[in-house]
Amino acid sequence: MGAVKTKRMPRAVREQQMLDAAVRTFGRRGYMAASMDEIAELAGVSKPLVYLYLNSKDDLFTACIRREAHALTEAVRSGVRTDQPADRQLWDGLLAFFTHTAENPDGWSVLHLQARIHGEAFAAEVAAMREEIVAFVTQLIVVAAREAHRDPDLPEREVAGLAEALVGAAESLAAWANATPGVTARQAAATLMNFAWAGLGDLMEGRPWAPPAP
Amino acid sequence: MGAVKTKRMPRAVREQQMLDAAVRTFGRRGYMAASMDEIAELAGVSKPLVYLYLNSKDDLFTACIRREAHALTEAVRSGVRTDQPADRQLWDGLLAFFTHTAENPDGWSVLHLQARIHGEAFAAEVAAMREEIVAFVTQLIVVAAREAHRDPDLPEREVAGLAEALVGAAESLAAWANATPGVTARQAAATLMNFAWAGLGDLMEGRPWAPPAP
Repeated sequence: MGAVKTKRMPRAVREQQMLDAAVRTFGRRGYMAASMDEIAELAGVSKPLVYLYLNSKDDLFTACIRREAHALTEAVRSGVRTDQPADRQLWDGLLAFFTHTAENPDGWSVLHLQARIHGEAFAAEVAAMREEIVAFVTQLIVVAAREAHRDPDLPEREVAGLAEALVGAAESLAAWANATPGVTARQAAATLMNFAWAGLGDLMEGRPWAPPAP
Repeated sequence: MGAVKTKRMPRAVREQQMLDAAVRTFGRRGYMAASMDEIAELAGVSKPLVYLYLNSKDDLFTACIRREAHALTEAVRSGVRTDQPADRQLWDGLLAFFTHTAENPDGWSVLHLQARIHGEAFAAEVAAMREEIVAFVTQLIVVAAREAHRDPDLPEREVAGLAEALVGAAESLAAWANATPGVTARQAAATLMNFAWAGLGDLMEGRPWAPPAP
């Protein structure tokens, strides 16, 4: 390690630079094609230093997933003020989600694509984040239902299903928005809000859509 | 091959038995843990015969993905009658989708989970099926918009976004329904219809949800 010349810099700062370079490289090239040489060069450090700090390509990828998952959940949480009406909370949450995924397309690619297609250990990391977001959305729908009726008769299972549907729709739409030139975060959020709110809203007000007889 | 004793049976029939066994094993154990021994035993054939017919574990997995993807898209297409009103078409399509994924949980696990997490080649197979379903849903929304206005002013991009949202919601909900005891296909379809239809319906009628000023 004696031959490696790097400017003195706190380890935490240098580690973030490595993670920035890694997220960018994994997100754009894919996990398999990304090379540790490229990541080190992009971070402006030697390859041995990357291994010293992050241990292996697998550990580096795991660290990327954790950092990006934390940043995304924080962005959504901090975008929502729980003293607002339910539709405003949903809108703010969606706008925060699509703004974050649009501003961090490489991070979103790591979470939504790369982490899912390269084995069960990485997929489990993303699944943990997803559960947290589903729980957050479930809570939001429960609050909305409580606002609508004092004694909501939406069964717990229906609420859980709605939260799964909403999160799946948002994931799918974010991937599409990032791959489609000219779609803004605000447009993507408005599309999903349009799709979801009137439906959820009607449901909350006790006006479910009625299926035809079997 | 002379030592292998198997009853005389057309190759196509035997191949389907192997694929049945493979889908079940890949779907339940996961791609990595599934063994060719187990698949051969479950299919009631020798392991060399599986290799003779399907070549390799990778090729067998690819054949499973293609068969299950084809079965799912056919189930949805044949569930929808295009002479029906748009909400009925959407309901019939959703019911067909959730019925098929509930009746074929191993096939759905192969498509939605396994094929996505074990490398880019398998993921690309599923992506092709997904594009076909998105195109089908897009067409359905366009027809609904045409019904609502003679000259629909939903921009093409908004329709594409809605189709992505709906497909993402359905995928997410099918995975949840299959993992949650007691949720029927009809309940899952009704949850998504409730979530989606009133929203889509309002949009078609020219009553979009209005975002607050930025």
